[in-house]
Amino acid sequence: MSVSVDSKAGIRQLLSARLHDPTYRGFASDNYAGAHPEIIEAVQAANEGHVTAYGEDVYTAALQELVQSHFGTAATAYPVFNGTGANVLALQALLPRWGAVICAATAHINTDENGAPERIGGIKLLPVPTPDGKLTPALIDAEAWGWGDEHRAQPLVVSITQTTELGTCYTPGEIQRIAEHVHAKGMKLHMDGARLANAAAHLGLPLRAFTTDVGVDVLSFGGTKNGLLFGEAVIWLNPQSDPGMSYLRKMNMQLASKMRFVSAQLIALLTDGLWLRSASHANEMAKRLSEGISDLDGVSLTQATQSNGVFAVLPPQAAAKVRESFRFYDWDQARGEVRWMCSWDTTETDVQALLAAVREAVDSPT
Amino acid sequence: MSVSVDSKAGIRQLLSARLHDPTYRGFASDNYAGAHPEIIEAVQAANEGHVTAYGEDVYTAALQELVQSHFGTAATAYPVFNGTGANVLALQALLPRWGAVICAATAHINTDENGAPERIGGIKLLPVPTPDGKLTPALIDAEAWGWGDEHRAQPLVVSITQTTELGTCYTPGEIQRIAEHVHAKGMKLHMDGARLANAAAHLGLPLRAFTTDVGVDVLSFGGTKNGLLFGEAVIWLNPQSDPGMSYLRKMNMQLASKMRFVSAQLIALLTDGLWLRSASHANEMAKRLSEGISDLDGVSLTQATQSNGVFAVLPPQAAAKVRESFRFYDWDQARGEVRWMCSWDTTETDVQALLAAVREAVDSPT
Amino acid sequence: MSVSVDSKAGIRQLLSARLHDPTYRGFASDNYAGAHPEIIEAVQAANEGHVTAYGEDVYTAALQELVQSHFGTAATAYPVFNGTGANVLALQALLPRWGAVICAATAHINTDENGAPERIGGIKLLPVPTPDGKLTPALIDAEAWGWGDEHRAQPLVVSITQTTELGTCYTPGEIQRIAEHVHAKGMKLHMDGARLANAAAHLGLPLRAFTTDVGVDVLSFGGTKNGLLFGEAVIWLNPQSDPGMSYLRKMNMQLASKMRFVSAQLIALLTDGLWLRSASHANEMAKRLSEGISDLDGVSLTQATQSNGVFAVLPPQAAAKVRESFRFYDWDQARGEVRWMCSWDTTETDVQALLAAVREAVDSPT
Amino acid sequence: MSVSVDSKAGIRQLLSARLHDPTYRGFASDNYAGAHPEIIEAVQAANEGHVTAYGEDVYTAALQELVQSHFGTAATAYPVFNGTGANVLALQALLPRWGAVICAATAHINTDENGAPERIGGIKLLPVPTPDGKLTPALIDAEAWGWGDEHRAQPLVVSITQTTELGTCYTPGEIQRIAEHVHAKGMKLHMDGARLANAAAHLGLPLRAFTTDVGVDVLSFGGTKNGLLFGEAVIWLNPQSDPGMSYLRKMNMQLASKMRFVSAQLIALLTDGLWLRSASHANEMAKRLSEGISDLDGVSLTQATQSNGVFAVLPPQAAAKVRESFRFYDWDQARGEVRWMCSWDTTETDVQALLAAVREAVDSPT
Repeated sequence: MSVSVDSKAGIRQLLSARLHDPTYRGFASDNYAGAHPEIIEAVQAANEGHVTAYGEDVYTAALQELVQSHFGTAATAYPVFNGTGANVLALQALLPRWGAVICAATAHINTDENGAPERIGGIKLLPVPTPDGKLTPALIDAEAWGWGDEHRAQPLVVSITQTTELGTCYTPGEIQRIAEHVHAKGMKLHMDGARLANAAAHLGLPLRAFTTDVGVDVLSFGGTKNGLLFGEAVIWLNPQSDPGMSYLRKMNMQLASKMRFVSAQLIALLTDGLWLRSASHANEMAKRLSEGISDLDGVSLTQATQSNGVFAVLPPQAAAKVRESFRFYDWDQARGEVRWMCSWDTTETDVQALLAAVREAVDSPT
Repeated sequence: MSVSVDSKAGIRQLLSARLHDPTYRGFASDNYAGAHPEIIEAVQAANEGHVTAYGEDVYTAALQELVQSHFGTAATAYPVFNGTGANVLALQALLPRWGAVICAATAHINTDENGAPERIGGIKLLPVPTPDGKLTPALIDAEAWGWGDEHRAQPLVVSITQTTELGTCYTPGEIQRIAEHVHAKGMKLHMDGARLANAAAHLGLPLRAFTTDVGVDVLSFGGTKNGLLFGEAVIWLNPQSDPGMSYLRKMNMQLASKMRFVSAQLIALLTDGLWLRSASHANEMAKRLSEGISDLDGVSLTQATQSNGVFAVLPPQAAAKVRESFRFYDWDQARGEVRWMCSWDTTETDVQALLAAVREAVDSPT
Repeated sequence: MSVSVDSKAGIRQLLSARLHDPTYRGFASDNYAGAHPEIIEAVQAANEGHVTAYGEDVYTAALQELVQSHFGTAATAYPVFNGTGANVLALQALLPRWGAVICAATAHINTDENGAPERIGGIKLLPVPTPDGKLTPALIDAEAWGWGDEHRAQPLVVSITQTTELGTCYTPGEIQRIAEHVHAKGMKLHMDGARLANAAAHLGLPLRAFTTDVGVDVLSFGGTKNGLLFGEAVIWLNPQSDPGMSYLRKMNMQLASKMRFVSAQLIALLTDGLWLRSASHANEMAKRLSEGISDLDGVSLTQATQSNGVFAVLPPQAAAKVRESFRFYDWDQARGEVRWMCSWDTTETDVQALLAAVREAVDSPT
Repeated sequence: MSVSVDSKAGIRQLLSARLHDPTYRGFASDNYAGAHPEIIEAVQAANEGHVTAYGEDVYTAALQELVQSHFGTAATAYPVFNGTGANVLALQALLPRWGAVICAATAHINTDENGAPERIGGIKLLPVPTPDGKLTPALIDAEAWGWGDEHRAQPLVVSITQTTELGTCYTPGEIQRIAEHVHAKGMKLHMDGARLANAAAHLGLPLRAFTTDVGVDVLSFGGTKNGLLFGEAVIWLNPQSDPGMSYLRKMNMQLASKMRFVSAQLIALLTDGLWLRSASHANEMAKRLSEGISDLDGVSLTQATQSNGVFAVLPPQAAAKVRESFRFYDWDQARGEVRWMCSWDTTETDVQALLAAVREAVDSPT
């Protein structure tokens, strides 16, 4: 995939001809996939001519109606650039300056955002170890204490991820019990929904059934991993109006000037079930991969496959062998645990090819 | 431009049919324009198939070569989402925690970023009033003092904007004198180049002639205002390697997961002179507008028209009248000063229509 | 004043014998003075035995009553370590994360705190040039605009300094007009009262007459410059209870564990008129210095002497000559302006000696 | 201990007469004790007359020599107000903006500073559970990974506490092995020495034997808990000069204007072995308490008593009963674990009284 660029004309030519090999397939991240054709179509539809910048446009207005049709009439969507931006904004909006957030130790906000919640948001995280990436009232209580003690960063928000970073999915009942517990203690509930659509696909439920209807206060709604070029939204669900989201978005460098292009993508995603079609497909591919893996001797799944990710332990050397054909992440190198992610464009053929590579690696690891 | 959405199908239909009126024209901001067709083409070329996320892709690699062809072999480009993000990253990379930045009082970083440099970057700004948005060594010296005094935020960076927020343009000589002055005092020079291409078009010079070659240390290179969907780049020019730009970009929530789409746009912009074609056109439209305005009695230009913006004082009531037809910003309401921006897609017809509206408003303001 | 320390015993000996020359006098800052004997006495009285730490002690409780006797029954005092800490806490408590503070360009928060309000408080300052360090409604309006515009750091607090950094003093009427103006625009009023006692002495009024009674919302009340070892207090005056001052104080590293010693000093200061005796004396010394200076040819006062500081322009070379005998600050080197500060322990003899030195320097500068 | 204040004269009277009951004894914190008489003496010796503010004084200069006699000639001391301030400054000085700190989960920086390291320092903490508050190379390795990965806050400092928050003490060999491990991985070693003197007393070693000589890079040296009114010092030990500690101290609101009073206290502490006398006494009292406790049925020590703190599990209800006579902290309420701290002024009688109360509570809990 290296490229030699002799001249501007060369680049131009390469560009039209495409620099990358579109037949290359990977399982490292749902971010390795590109954008869905309907998303590109929406961007083109929104292009041409002049439109007011910074969100005072008809696409962003239409997005509000659409989001309300999915999440209830109290919902307000704030399009942003990326997931880290969405999470920090959501948490800041819920917290005073002295606030802390209880989250699973494996939460993206704790492990994958280079300290943005702390450094940019000024937020203390209180991580709790979990077996499967899911918090429970009991796990939350490990850190839900100390209100009124000025020495302790005040736990005022709980953040859960749906589906989790370990591919597991909360049921609506589990979320409701968490929300009731959290609210009873005077805290708020944030949901990192970078893969919210995958949860809906797994649960077979509308989006609001495990968000608005069970007590989530604010949601980071994922777009990029589900087929957008870029773009997420913070969706404020709490019936009380949000405190200054517009200002926070700007000062946190997440305000898109040509916001029509974020909103148009999100509109396309939420229209005609694209969000569900894409997520269901990704989940289905993961399910097939998971089933194929569980048939193999010497390989064991480490988490239930409830979305588009498969977690498994391979025999020594096997991962390295499979990696000759496919890129993917080590999840826990010490245990030999790997993660394979499927995306909206993963094919049945891709899954079979990966399964064949794993089978071969396991059969003859050296 | 209001929209009624009865159903998802309705939205879908509206979306294909386009929600906005593409014939609507404005002069409020170059951000009101959409994306150039070549940019859309580049996004499409980069789409399909799997590509490594977070910048380890062939488009981002090719962008480096292209940027080096424009800015010299020491240049490194860090694609980011927006201009505020670019500026904060660039300034943080140049500064210790106790650093301050000398800038024009009208600088975007001082007036339009809701304190992001201070709040997110932890940076003190030392703004200096200027007549035309341009700093000089003498103006810089108003704040360039107090090194070693722990009570004073240490002025270690000067930030200039090219072209300025007032539409004026530094000559290479002016920048060189600033750079020499700044470096002689142990400071670094940042350039906010949100409209760098407009400067090149005005000066008739290659990009490096007034950046790398005259001593700029780091550059915020603008894309969105010059026809991208979104996307800018911090371009590190200083021969010493940058201190942690990759970490800063991530922690500041400016790391695009599907970076290929930012890089592909920037590649298209910097290829076949698209950057210059678009900027030259916008400048030319502003020039015609400026010339037309200067022929009108009762209207006076307040700044030299050296890029794509025109600044003028209108008689009382006239601005309100013109605004019935075109959206634009009051620049200094007390003085009756307005700003009109032209963009890559502003047409000769647009300019004539605005001129006609101004003429009419001036002739019969009530 | 150098010291040679050969052994621990040597240091011990030097220490008992005092390392510094107590006859040395300076006019550089009221911080050059030590602590008033009554303050030392109070510290000793509060010593011995065990007392609950972190402010749950009888001294801190008694301080509340005393502060309320001075500032009204709604007042609550939060002892802190230093003035910068007091200012940042007070401003944070008044502001949302997106807030900005309008202040005089010469304000201590803008010029002498190494960006602490920005870096630690996450606050944008909007400095306004003034002739005498005093804001007015008209000057405030230079920056009091742009509410609702997400691009602009929201001006929600005005901070004034009493007495100002230029030694001038607001009248109660001036403050009241500012407070009414500020409140009418939905903003709050902070007062940096590092030298509040000097204002009371100049005005001949009780402390509440130009704070609580004229609409100040929160006050940084100075102790160190008026004869404490260390220690200031944020005094919350607004009838609405403060939002989280205790948490803010702790997280901003301003919570004294042995708070009894801060509170006992503040009690002593506010008891038996020590605050007023000390400030009146310092003011009187400055007045005599000012009068003496105004009799000299070639020296001109640049600010009215309304507290314990004297600002004057000396002929070239004269400042350097005077500095051979007394330490003091250049205030504006370009103009030849200097600042002389008097403190609670400045003597009539000190003033005469400085005047003699100035007279001699002016008469024979070389 | 309530106080009624009828008049200023009343307060004055109460103050001279002392507001608190000096015979009251507690075991809640070493911060409940006052200041040692030699400390008060030092403050008085440093008082009177004028001395340059902000650290350019003879006491702060003498402190440097004294600190170097204890910690080696490369040591530089930066007096600050409190321990949280010392820790945040030290960590900031060691870290780039993207840095993270590995620490024990029980570390003061993680549990007792209301997020100051995160919020003020912009630092991500990576806490590791430990049985006894002590890190080891193996425990450090749980978080010492991921360098070069921009998504992960970069672990570049390890912070250990000596003696730990659980009263345990690292041996010099343990620290040396940690330092070598940390340095071999390109990280730096910070020591929170709020109770460093207690470690010296326990180990019977000079201060440098388990700091400078075994590879600690920077030290937070505790004063307040060991008999000061207030005051700690960051002591830079790394042979390379520190990066901007003076600026960091000021911007973090830890720069005392009348620094002579902090330095004089620290001089007194480090002279004639006051630091060691006080710490040895506190340790000895804890040892007697610990021995007395271990003789009681139904009470068990949970940590080795290696400094001035005793940790024990009491039977249900017993803690509440003891608390009728003495104030102390629950450490782990679920387990019934309590903490008793001894200080420089705890007496043998105090210890016997507490032991008697515990004995009685255990014998007849209801």
